[in-house]
Amino acid sequence: MSDTDLKDERIEDADLRDESLAASEFPEDPDGEPETESESLDEDNRLKADYVRAVKDALWEEDFDRVYELVEPLHPADIADLFELVDADERPVLARSIRDLMGVEVIAELNDWVRELLVETLPAEVVAGFAGELDTDDAVAMLEDLDEDNQRAVLAEMEPEDRAAIESALSYPDESAGRMMSREFVAVPETMTVGDLIDFLREHRELPTEFWEVFIVDPMHRPIGTCVLSWILRCPRNIPLYDVMKREQTLIPVDMDQEEVALRFQKYALISAAVVDTSGRLIGQITVDDVVHIISEEAGEDALLLSGAGDGDINEPIRDAWSGRVRWLIANLLTATLASAVIAMFEDTIAAMVALATLMPIVAGLGGNAGTQTLAVTVRALAMNQLTPSNAWRAVRREMSIALLNGGTVAVIIGLAVSLIFGNPMLGGVIAAAMMTNIVIAGMAGVLIPLALERLNADPAISSSVFVTMTTDSMGFLVFLGLATMSGLVG
Amino acid sequence: MSDTDLKDERIEDADLRDESLAASEFPEDPDGEPETESESLDEDNRLKADYVRAVKDALWEEDFDRVYELVEPLHPADIADLFELVDADERPVLARSIRDLMGVEVIAELNDWVRELLVETLPAEVVAGFAGELDTDDAVAMLEDLDEDNQRAVLAEMEPEDRAAIESALSYPDESAGRMMSREFVAVPETMTVGDLIDFLREHRELPTEFWEVFIVDPMHRPIGTCVLSWILRCPRNIPLYDVMKREQTLIPVDMDQEEVALRFQKYALISAAVVDTSGRLIGQITVDDVVHIISEEAGEDALLLSGAGDGDINEPIRDAWSGRVRWLIANLLTATLASAVIAMFEDTIAAMVALATLMPIVAGLGGNAGTQTLAVTVRALAMNQLTPSNAWRAVRREMSIALLNGGTVAVIIGLAVSLIFGNPMLGGVIAAAMMTNIVIAGMAGVLIPLALERLNADPAISSSVFVTMTTDSMGFLVFLGLATMSGLVG
Repeated sequence: MSDTDLKDERIEDADLRDESLAASEFPEDPDGEPETESESLDEDNRLKADYVRAVKDALWEEDFDRVYELVEPLHPADIADLFELVDADERPVLARSIRDLMGVEVIAELNDWVRELLVETLPAEVVAGFAGELDTDDAVAMLEDLDEDNQRAVLAEMEPEDRAAIESALSYPDESAGRMMSREFVAVPETMTVGDLIDFLREHRELPTEFWEVFIVDPMHRPIGTCVLSWILRCPRNIPLYDVMKREQTLIPVDMDQEEVALRFQKYALISAAVVDTSGRLIGQITVDDVVHIISEEAGEDALLLSGAGDGDINEPIRDAWSGRVRWLIANLLTATLASAVIAMFEDTIAAMVALATLMPIVAGLGGNAGTQTLAVTVRALAMNQLTPSNAWRAVRREMSIALLNGGTVAVIIGLAVSLIFGNPMLGGVIAAAMMTNIVIAGMAGVLIPLALERLNADPAISSSVFVTMTTDSMGFLVFLGLATMSGLVG
Repeated sequence: MSDTDLKDERIEDADLRDESLAASEFPEDPDGEPETESESLDEDNRLKADYVRAVKDALWEEDFDRVYELVEPLHPADIADLFELVDADERPVLARSIRDLMGVEVIAELNDWVRELLVETLPAEVVAGFAGELDTDDAVAMLEDLDEDNQRAVLAEMEPEDRAAIESALSYPDESAGRMMSREFVAVPETMTVGDLIDFLREHRELPTEFWEVFIVDPMHRPIGTCVLSWILRCPRNIPLYDVMKREQTLIPVDMDQEEVALRFQKYALISAAVVDTSGRLIGQITVDDVVHIISEEAGEDALLLSGAGDGDINEPIRDAWSGRVRWLIANLLTATLASAVIAMFEDTIAAMVALATLMPIVAGLGGNAGTQTLAVTVRALAMNQLTPSNAWRAVRREMSIALLNGGTVAVIIGLAVSLIFGNPMLGGVIAAAMMTNIVIAGMAGVLIPLALERLNADPAISSSVFVTMTTDSMGFLVFLGLATMSGLVG
């Protein structure tokens, strides 16, 4: 009943009676002191600059024994961090110096860009060796970004079984549940008792060593319930699983987008979930440790997307970062010319009163700030499914109220200041009215534009801010210079 | 050895042999179809607008049986969502209509603001009842935002034991591990065997029902290792825990900030972790489901902080949102006056050539965009501990390279366009040179300002963008108008 996609590595891991597991690979810490006391990590649990420098010096001096000695005590996640911290050209040398420390945990933890560049420098059979030891989801992450020739070369070097699993995962869309899921899980029929299950687990050494739930399936291999392990441990042996399992469970369709998967895990506080194919059969599981990275990525990408910084990873090659960002700058250049055209309509007014040119960027800029605030709040609420068609109008009314309060406050301050500084209450009145108007327009644009894009099935984080800035700039200049002209302030 | 802070609710939950658990409270789904087929949820797993409207109509008509009937099939997490989607004044009525569905899962899942407002409308003894049933961490989340009088009133109504646990949690700093941790966990001495542990778990009904790891402690109650349950299930009964446990573990000091806790969980892919006091004794555990919310919040807050939108929750009261955002706008108003003062220095130049006034916002605006991109990337990398003193200079060099490429591209476009449109190659040259300079300055400001703030132990997400915008605005106007003046373009 359980998945048969066995891994040599896992069988070895599963050998719990073996004394190799009793002798931990990590130094014992008898004080129970938190590991922030470490020699290589600083108080924020980052590798110390001194430590990284020592590794780089040893690499430079080609003292590979020293490199090994320095790196050996690190946790695999810290070795992965070390790869990010040394320079790109030092990474292949580092990998060679610590070959037998380059376990699957290190490869799995590496930043995508760093892994891609590193993997490209390694021979296909070495990459295939790593891929064979990794969980399917991590192997897929390693191979999916390789170019087609490299990918084919690596797959050709792999065991047929592993290759089949990876090819099947690669057949699912990018960023879908099918790419993320692991094919190693425990599934048993409902007719088993707690005792049967414990015996089954003790006998089947090829099962994954770490799992959090057991899936109960019907004869068609469709999930009908789940049992967290703590329930099983606490029940007498004779209780049938049928009476212990929880029937309500969140099933993940194999083609579900990873962002949606992450939202389900968050909403229902899941530890693991069954992945089903279109006919409802259990084909994999997703565990929370794989989702945690996605939650962080998806939540963090809003700031990057709103600023037009694309992927925004500091390990992204410069060429890619440039082409991602320059597109955004050019889009903003086009919208800026619109604002420019608005100003050009009022050249006579400005010529008559140059002070207007000094004040107009304040009106446009503050509108931009206010619009960006509303936009950030709206985009976040949309991403978290907090803002839905049911409460969209309430959100719009709320933003309008805040805009009126903000606009009022800022308008009074700037109006008084300009009246006093320029000794011209009329100019103060014009800038106050323009400021109020532009901040209200900014609030409206900041909430309506992302809502409209969401309705059109576009990602509101990606394009909203160009439109919002265009609106606040153009309207800021138009309202300020227009009011100045009409009010008879000039001439 | 285990924690003795017992909960009635938990004891009841733990009664796994009871048939009440076999009869699930959720409808069976024999097809194994994903629950997106539901009548109340749309394809994105959000409550449908029609459904929310039906509940609101029933509330309005005071047809509370209908309300109950509609809400009963929902998952607790969806009931929590429903509270967010109905209007604030409907929430207390909704809570009263579905009193016995208002379980602890609903209270725990409620948005902080919605919970705070709702809890304030409930009598102290009802709140105390909920708090007694919740896990300590959820009870603390519910009570920590109440004003002092209310908090004291609720605590007075609670069982002494629960009150003590909550008061102890409240004694730790806001957003620290002590506030997040649960006091319910399983800790056993290393002398036990696997069989002893299983018997212990079967006999002690008061232990938590859901847990993922068992902590092994020494006689001083200091953690010396952990055992995930799947290892225990797979080992013969006679194996001592000493030989199964993993010695390497991440211990969380009780005063660690929640952001740091979330980073540890992410970095080391933890499911649960032991919380220790200053003398290294095990006093609580944190599980990944509590951390997932924090990871999402902390990652998502960058966009909100960079825009100055404060908490940025759409359920935050308008007054709070206003006071949070207006402070930011006033700060920006002050920096905008600096840019204004720069323009004022060149009033004669502008009077001589008004076209400069139409073009100057383009230079300042594009610089602002480029600076914001760099800033978003840098702030994110700092938050993820990807950017440390070890690679700071590489990041600065990288941003400079990207800025030169971006600046070059945009300068060529704007230079040619202005030369052609205005028929003035000199003006084109001036704006191209100003654009190039400002984008490079923007790149420098976008990476150096957050690095400097981080070095000064300030949160770079909070204040960087005011400084960056100030720099790009002022320098944009200064360089463009200054070059125009010096180049002899005017007069």
